[in-house]
Amino acid sequence: MNKRPLILVTNDDGITAPGIRKLIDVMKTIGDVVVVAPDSPQSGMGHAITVDSTLTVDKINGVNGEQAEYKCSGTPADCVKLGIREVLKRKPDLCVSGINHGSNASVNVIYSGTMSAALEAGIEGIPAIGFSLLDYSWGANFDNLESDIKKITLNVLKNGLPEGIVLNVNFPKSKNEFKGIKICRQAKGNWVETFDKRVNPMGKDYYWLSGEFVNLDKGEDTDQWALEHNYISVVPTQFDLTAHHFIQKLNNWDL
Amino acid sequence: MNKRPLILVTNDDGITAPGIRKLIDVMKTIGDVVVVAPDSPQSGMGHAITVDSTLTVDKINGVNGEQAEYKCSGTPADCVKLGIREVLKRKPDLCVSGINHGSNASVNVIYSGTMSAALEAGIEGIPAIGFSLLDYSWGANFDNLESDIKKITLNVLKNGLPEGIVLNVNFPKSKNEFKGIKICRQAKGNWVETFDKRVNPMGKDYYWLSGEFVNLDKGEDTDQWALEHNYISVVPTQFDLTAHHFIQKLNNWDL
Repeated sequence: MNKRPLILVTNDDGITAPGIRKLIDVMKTIGDVVVVAPDSPQSGMGHAITVDSTLTVDKINGVNGEQAEYKCSGTPADCVKLGIREVLKRKPDLCVSGINHGSNASVNVIYSGTMSAALEAGIEGIPAIGFSLLDYSWGANFDNLESDIKKITLNVLKNGLPEGIVLNVNFPKSKNEFKGIKICRQAKGNWVETFDKRVNPMGKDYYWLSGEFVNLDKGEDTDQWALEHNYISVVPTQFDLTAHHFIQKLNNWDL
Repeated sequence: MNKRPLILVTNDDGITAPGIRKLIDVMKTIGDVVVVAPDSPQSGMGHAITVDSTLTVDKINGVNGEQAEYKCSGTPADCVKLGIREVLKRKPDLCVSGINHGSNASVNVIYSGTMSAALEAGIEGIPAIGFSLLDYSWGANFDNLESDIKKITLNVLKNGLPEGIVLNVNFPKSKNEFKGIKICRQAKGNWVETFDKRVNPMGKDYYWLSGEFVNLDKGEDTDQWALEHNYISVVPTQFDLTAHHFIQKLNNWDL
């Protein structure tokens, strides 16, 4: 690619989150950046889209004033759709989402607004990467991620990605140097919820969703394993959900 | 299975939708039914979960009074989580979601609240099926789906489903008899959006998301093909999003 690539940047923590500010800074060293991101946090939104209410998208002054930035009232997937059709009026060369404040490894990919934006770009045929750091705090330190984000992004721009595949990149929370980048599969695991039941001032029960992630996977080729051992995990992630290997068995059912 | 199975029924169109009322009626002929469904429509919610606000779940009088029914303020995935942990206090033998008013074939599975409920149950290790009819109207006729829903459900109860797989079942909109049930893969396709841009009374632009589904897949083994040819489509659907076939190639990158 000779000319500078056009890069769409989005996230699910909202346009003011420290994670996306860092990602914008890194992408500006690689290409021309346009930001279309939610105007408020959208964590846990999965691949939601806004079908029964209206959407707004407003140009704002970028924090450093060098890139076009738009805040959108919708979900991360909405941001990508609106970004392509209404803001850019063309497909960007790359879409990056994040840096998420918190893990999108293992089954978290399913609930992830960050990854839904990357997958939406992938559905549109745009190479896409979601970046996440295993640190939920707003004050997380993103500085030591820069060189690896750049390396992975340049590899995607150089090699491209096959149709139907985007990358899910997670960084361990670590004060030490990362051991390197590991290509992984998504670990089997799930959240064991504990609903925190409370009573409101009117005497009515309500719940807060809470819980703990349980890794059910003993494999050493998973994203969870890599992250627990201070590696950066890269999972090629697809939106064809067909369990192809089970089709033949189903054909033997009495249907 | 000797005793009657315990069946959790949910959907994304809301607990009063005609589609879920029909699904409840069919399930009552098979097992003991408990309904936990959204109190309002949740279409397009993808795999959203409620992490930054509270949830309520209220027992209501079932329309026919024979089954326990609960309306929940959350998303379809929330309904499954709350249904298992707080309402049933145990895993049901089966979870069914739908009957959705509209298609969840091809890439629609990604945006589908109906299928997110089924996938959430699958993550919990519960056999699960999402049912959808290719008719968005509230007055859609679900009567001719009964026997096939029952046949598919009884097969799942008899054969079980492998870990990590749920079924995505779509019915064509048809006045004629269905040609049969076809086991399919998810067709490649995407939505080409046309944002309907309007101006509000205060002079500010806003958008309605609209668009058209484009089938990019010429295969005759896809759900789109089956549905267009008046077959019922059954796609085994998984929540391991790893593109396993691309892992080896990625290991050759300069990372």
